[in-house]
Amino acid sequence: MTRATHQAGAGPLRQKLFSVIFRSDTPAGMAFDVLLIAAILVSVTVVMLTTVEGVNSRHGRTLYLIEWVFTIAFTAEYVLRLYCVRRPAHYATSFFGIVDLLSILPTYLGLLFTGAGPMLVLRILRILRLFRVMHMANYVTDANILLEVLKSSWRKTLIFIYAVVTLVVIFATLMHFIEGPEAGFTSIPMSMYWGIVTLTTVGYGDITPLTPLGKFIATITMILGYGIIAVPMGIYFSEYTQATRRERSKATCKSCGQRGHETDARYCRTCGEELERD
Amino acid sequence: MTRATHQAGAGPLRQKLFSVIFRSDTPAGMAFDVLLIAAILVSVTVVMLTTVEGVNSRHGRTLYLIEWVFTIAFTAEYVLRLYCVRRPAHYATSFFGIVDLLSILPTYLGLLFTGAGPMLVLRILRILRLFRVMHMANYVTDANILLEVLKSSWRKTLIFIYAVVTLVVIFATLMHFIEGPEAGFTSIPMSMYWGIVTLTTVGYGDITPLTPLGKFIATITMILGYGIIAVPMGIYFSEYTQATRRERSKATCKSCGQRGHETDARYCRTCGEELERD
Amino acid sequence: MTRATHQAGAGPLRQKLFSVIFRSDTPAGMAFDVLLIAAILVSVTVVMLTTVEGVNSRHGRTLYLIEWVFTIAFTAEYVLRLYCVRRPAHYATSFFGIVDLLSILPTYLGLLFTGAGPMLVLRILRILRLFRVMHMANYVTDANILLEVLKSSWRKTLIFIYAVVTLVVIFATLMHFIEGPEAGFTSIPMSMYWGIVTLTTVGYGDITPLTPLGKFIATITMILGYGIIAVPMGIYFSEYTQATRRERSKATCKSCGQRGHETDARYCRTCGEELERD
Amino acid sequence: MTRATHQAGAGPLRQKLFSVIFRSDTPAGMAFDVLLIAAILVSVTVVMLTTVEGVNSRHGRTLYLIEWVFTIAFTAEYVLRLYCVRRPAHYATSFFGIVDLLSILPTYLGLLFTGAGPMLVLRILRILRLFRVMHMANYVTDANILLEVLKSSWRKTLIFIYAVVTLVVIFATLMHFIEGPEAGFTSIPMSMYWGIVTLTTVGYGDITPLTPLGKFIATITMILGYGIIAVPMGIYFSEYTQATRRERSKATCKSCGQRGHETDARYCRTCGEELERD
Repeated sequence: MTRATHQAGAGPLRQKLFSVIFRSDTPAGMAFDVLLIAAILVSVTVVMLTTVEGVNSRHGRTLYLIEWVFTIAFTAEYVLRLYCVRRPAHYATSFFGIVDLLSILPTYLGLLFTGAGPMLVLRILRILRLFRVMHMANYVTDANILLEVLKSSWRKTLIFIYAVVTLVVIFATLMHFIEGPEAGFTSIPMSMYWGIVTLTTVGYGDITPLTPLGKFIATITMILGYGIIAVPMGIYFSEYTQATRRERSKATCKSCGQRGHETDARYCRTCGEELERD
Repeated sequence: MTRATHQAGAGPLRQKLFSVIFRSDTPAGMAFDVLLIAAILVSVTVVMLTTVEGVNSRHGRTLYLIEWVFTIAFTAEYVLRLYCVRRPAHYATSFFGIVDLLSILPTYLGLLFTGAGPMLVLRILRILRLFRVMHMANYVTDANILLEVLKSSWRKTLIFIYAVVTLVVIFATLMHFIEGPEAGFTSIPMSMYWGIVTLTTVGYGDITPLTPLGKFIATITMILGYGIIAVPMGIYFSEYTQATRRERSKATCKSCGQRGHETDARYCRTCGEELERD
Repeated sequence: MTRATHQAGAGPLRQKLFSVIFRSDTPAGMAFDVLLIAAILVSVTVVMLTTVEGVNSRHGRTLYLIEWVFTIAFTAEYVLRLYCVRRPAHYATSFFGIVDLLSILPTYLGLLFTGAGPMLVLRILRILRLFRVMHMANYVTDANILLEVLKSSWRKTLIFIYAVVTLVVIFATLMHFIEGPEAGFTSIPMSMYWGIVTLTTVGYGDITPLTPLGKFIATITMILGYGIIAVPMGIYFSEYTQATRRERSKATCKSCGQRGHETDARYCRTCGEELERD
Repeated sequence: MTRATHQAGAGPLRQKLFSVIFRSDTPAGMAFDVLLIAAILVSVTVVMLTTVEGVNSRHGRTLYLIEWVFTIAFTAEYVLRLYCVRRPAHYATSFFGIVDLLSILPTYLGLLFTGAGPMLVLRILRILRLFRVMHMANYVTDANILLEVLKSSWRKTLIFIYAVVTLVVIFATLMHFIEGPEAGFTSIPMSMYWGIVTLTTVGYGDITPLTPLGKFIATITMILGYGIIAVPMGIYFSEYTQATRRERSKATCKSCGQRGHETDARYCRTCGEELERD
């Protein structure tokens, strides 16, 4: 979650627009952000409601209208973003640039092709635009810590996932031969589906063991799943603690050298000197 | 969970009453608290039992009688609270003042309007009165720590909830198109219900995927849910550890009022003023 | 989990017997413990098997025989325990003394009263005898830490349980009125059963919401349950870390004063001096 | 997860082969590892697909062919491993040597015995070969930490498992007598299956209580299960934190070989010898 790297184009109008649309450190920029979040949430809700049969048959016309209002608004926003940014091509090919385009394109394509129904659902990806709010102050630090945790623990996570997959494959094979098709364990992949449903403690109950031996093996699977959940938690938490500590230690007192100040500290807790932040 | 801010009214009777009803540092005040807890628990149980058909048809009369005994007792308590407090209006409009009123009002309104059955259930809110026990010594500190954790981690929690919602929306849309209405994924909101049931590992089994591809996507949802549960736990725990540490060092800045300094802090991190220690 | 406070009676035979039966620091005592664990496990399994119809109808006679062998063996052990301990009455009224008696009594009573079937199941309490193994070296420390954690966090646990109960009552009342008897929410206590099944992420699926609004409320219950599980974990873990640290800090170097040595340390890590342990 | 202890045989060809097959510090060795992982994953998928009726009836011939290609490739690999290693017997009797043999044997035996269908599934154990990737740099350390955690917490885990088993036995016995066979609690072992399904929060819903008292006991079981999950997590995490810290301080005592000293340790905690640091 790096800070947005886009820069304002030349000219006062483009700079003014840029600060409203891309930043949130002015009242106008903040207001735009809040408005955008509201628009995204309402428009995603509208997309969802069109899939509810009862609602669509009665209010389909209204939903279609609202949809077009948002599409036009988002189109205007997209054009303004292209206009006010210094390098429009850079923005258009960035992750959020593509998401912004995908948010409006399906509605227009729906006019050209009649059978484009399923494609319209791509508009639900508008929800990804919500992550724009992350460029608001303070969120960056918090999101960074979460990402850093994922990055520094990926190797341990891989070992963990691999051990889980091995367990699932072995237990699934056992259950396939013990229980057989009557109980729903028709094949090894189907048994693996059961294995993951059980190991993650979801437990739908659509496939359950019927024989005493099968129930015994299932019991062992559950206890293992119950114990195994502790492993990723331990890993993530340990990395999280370290990432928080590192984040805090970025601030060092210029006067006495004291490190590890809390993120909201403005004065050194050891010598009272004002802290400088980058 | 701030300490009760009400103060006793003038006169020895009101002061005596206040110390019994509002405080728990005297034997009488302690006894009143214990009695109140018992009364609340019994009266909530009575409200619950009136909704059990078998019990209500046989013992309805008895339950009605008990209900009136408690209503009259709680009314007397409410009047006494209004009487002994210095500013009755302040108490009446406070959170607990409203809860106290809502605990007795429905029974009286039930006399006036015959069809007020459902409203009677508002009496179950009496259970909120139990939180009065929290003003007992030591609970305040513990409850404060829990609240402080929630407060200081709300931004990370928001990012987390937002990421979960995005995941649910995307997986729900996928499942709606892969599985369709036969399996119960009749609309995107219905699929989202399935998504949350799965991601939280509740797994009712009222909606389950039927196609191999749907089962595969469901499997991925479960594994993600299993991994994601580690994130809020890491967050809360880390904040909890810090909150406990800060609570232990009860230094408050005399100059700006900033609380929660680290144990080795000698200067306020907000205003740079030297801290005084007891 | 305090160390057994029983003492050996007078005379070499009673002392010899005591060291075998009550202690495990001699080879004979260790062998007795292992034998006892095996006997307990087998005899509990036998009690369980008598409740399995298919097994009982075919092997009922054999099970009955084995049961009597164990009852006589445990009776002999009980008599020997009474004989070799200094204060038999003290042993007989201790927790394990009562468990030991309850392990043998039902079989004898089964001879006197024909209809004592259900009572025979009391023999399953023999499993509690397994905790005797805990007096073996090292287990005491580990069990002590776990108990200390529970003790020091009971107040926070109480606040937590109370908050959960309030949530369950309020959500159960809501669901009772939204869903009604068709979906299985026949009364508030029944709805509370659903609430706990959902909040603990067990999710049997025997009672599930049918209306859209009910599904929405259920969704919120699940997310709350998912978030709430983090709280007791944070509490227990924090207390656990502190208990471990305290346990470690019991060893202090007499030479340099360094505290917090690991539990298996024999020499001070700062000055190399040998550590004394109590 | 100790480092592979096999050594290359004499001669340049054997040494070259050894470095490719057994090690991954050369480009050729790395490429071989990646190829091996791909081959294992594809061949395990093929074994799984043969159990899916629809796929097997249509593409059975193709799957059979692919299976033989992999069997021959793995046989060649096995022969090369035997050839290039210094002590073939040592390799052949090692864990991975046996897994390697089990990966190819079933296909050959399938030629000799016609009814060997079920045995063919042993080939799924090929997935264990994936753990070979663990000898790649850095994984060893991470896997070591995870193993060390399991090793140092086994006693606490045992106490925990024992407490859980006792709980399950007692609650299962209660439910067997309260609910009886109508609800599916036909015997104590069957009730224990229900108990574990509930305590681990899996909650299939194939056996659920029907009576109010049974539902109440089930509720208590769930809440206990919910609270108990915190215990192993606290244990594992605490041990994990300590193991990570020890791993970072890779000091080994020159005198007694004790590893895992704390970062500030200057003397060995086992023999009191001064530690040398790199």
